[in-house]
Amino acid sequence: MGKVVASASMSLDGFVAHENNDPGRLFDWYEVGDVEVVTASEPASFHLTPTSADYWRDWIGQIGCLVVGRLLFDITDGWKGQHPLGVPFVVLTHEPPADWAHAHTGNAHFVTEGIEEAIARAQEIAGERTVALAAGTVAGQALGAGLVDEVAVDLVPVVLGSGHRYFADVDPAAVRLGDPTTIIPSTRVTHMVFPVER
Amino acid sequence: MGKVVASASMSLDGFVAHENNDPGRLFDWYEVGDVEVVTASEPASFHLTPTSADYWRDWIGQIGCLVVGRLLFDITDGWKGQHPLGVPFVVLTHEPPADWAHAHTGNAHFVTEGIEEAIARAQEIAGERTVALAAGTVAGQALGAGLVDEVAVDLVPVVLGSGHRYFADVDPAAVRLGDPTTIIPSTRVTHMVFPVER
Repeated sequence: MGKVVASASMSLDGFVAHENNDPGRLFDWYEVGDVEVVTASEPASFHLTPTSADYWRDWIGQIGCLVVGRLLFDITDGWKGQHPLGVPFVVLTHEPPADWAHAHTGNAHFVTEGIEEAIARAQEIAGERTVALAAGTVAGQALGAGLVDEVAVDLVPVVLGSGHRYFADVDPAAVRLGDPTTIIPSTRVTHMVFPVER
Repeated sequence: MGKVVASASMSLDGFVAHENNDPGRLFDWYEVGDVEVVTASEPASFHLTPTSADYWRDWIGQIGCLVVGRLLFDITDGWKGQHPLGVPFVVLTHEPPADWAHAHTGNAHFVTEGIEEAIARAQEIAGERTVALAAGTVAGQALGAGLVDEVAVDLVPVVLGSGHRYFADVDPAAVRLGDPTTIIPSTRVTHMVFPVER
């Protein structure tokens, strides 16, 4: 089975978005370069530095399935069934939407049994490829349950002060990280990957 | 005048200590190497990797004065008048201690007028050398007041979950950071320095 990786852009003080879900300046690095990256849906493209583009392509090239929470699903309307990365996604939710307009795409899978089931389902879908977890509640629950292999942090030199935290709802004692295996400085971001010690 | 630099070991989620002031595993990197670093007072020495030792010596070699808050002063009893780095320090406090047993060393200077006065006094003492700020309230107030040139973060791969934050009491809008000018991976720490944009 493939790796399970949590990934998000994070402020220097540990937040992945403002309280109102606005990412603020956390996504500046998606528009500071000359390399156009075309995506499967809106936004149709963004513009990375060559360094970030290389890192980005390596990262998305390995993803076989995403696991997201219900909040992100609702905010994006499930990307209308087409995630920008062009991969299927598992939505962890207490109750699947009854009449979701984009269910016909077949890319969204709803799991109600909890984080372990959600990741197991995503691993079935992903096969040997990576399962990527959205930061926030999903990543926090997965970390707490010992289900994460790597924590990828796109560390952004901003201070948000408050908002949604990367490591929300995590029992700190349950999370032991190793030294970063990847540190790639770019513009308005440093790409870092921390292995989870078992 | 010398630079004003905030510096601290920080967890990946932005904390510099637990709520009870215990640093937890944040200081592990002070004892994971073979290079003994002798200090002017307790602890008498610690043991860094060669990489961290080089970074450490560069850093303390430039410090001319520290600015600390009353909490840290009280916790350490003002290092009994001898800070481990062997430098004088300015204590920002509402009321200086009346009969402090170690006042005779002359290394402690008490300022009651606020953060601007505390840094101005420290800069007088430091001359062309760097004024170092303790993370927490002092660094937060100084950042908010636009008085900091660089934010040094010894980024430790641990999650604390709660505790004292590096960027406490900071108005996020007042803090604009640039991309790190220093990124030095070591063992149980990545040494990073972020310039403050004016």
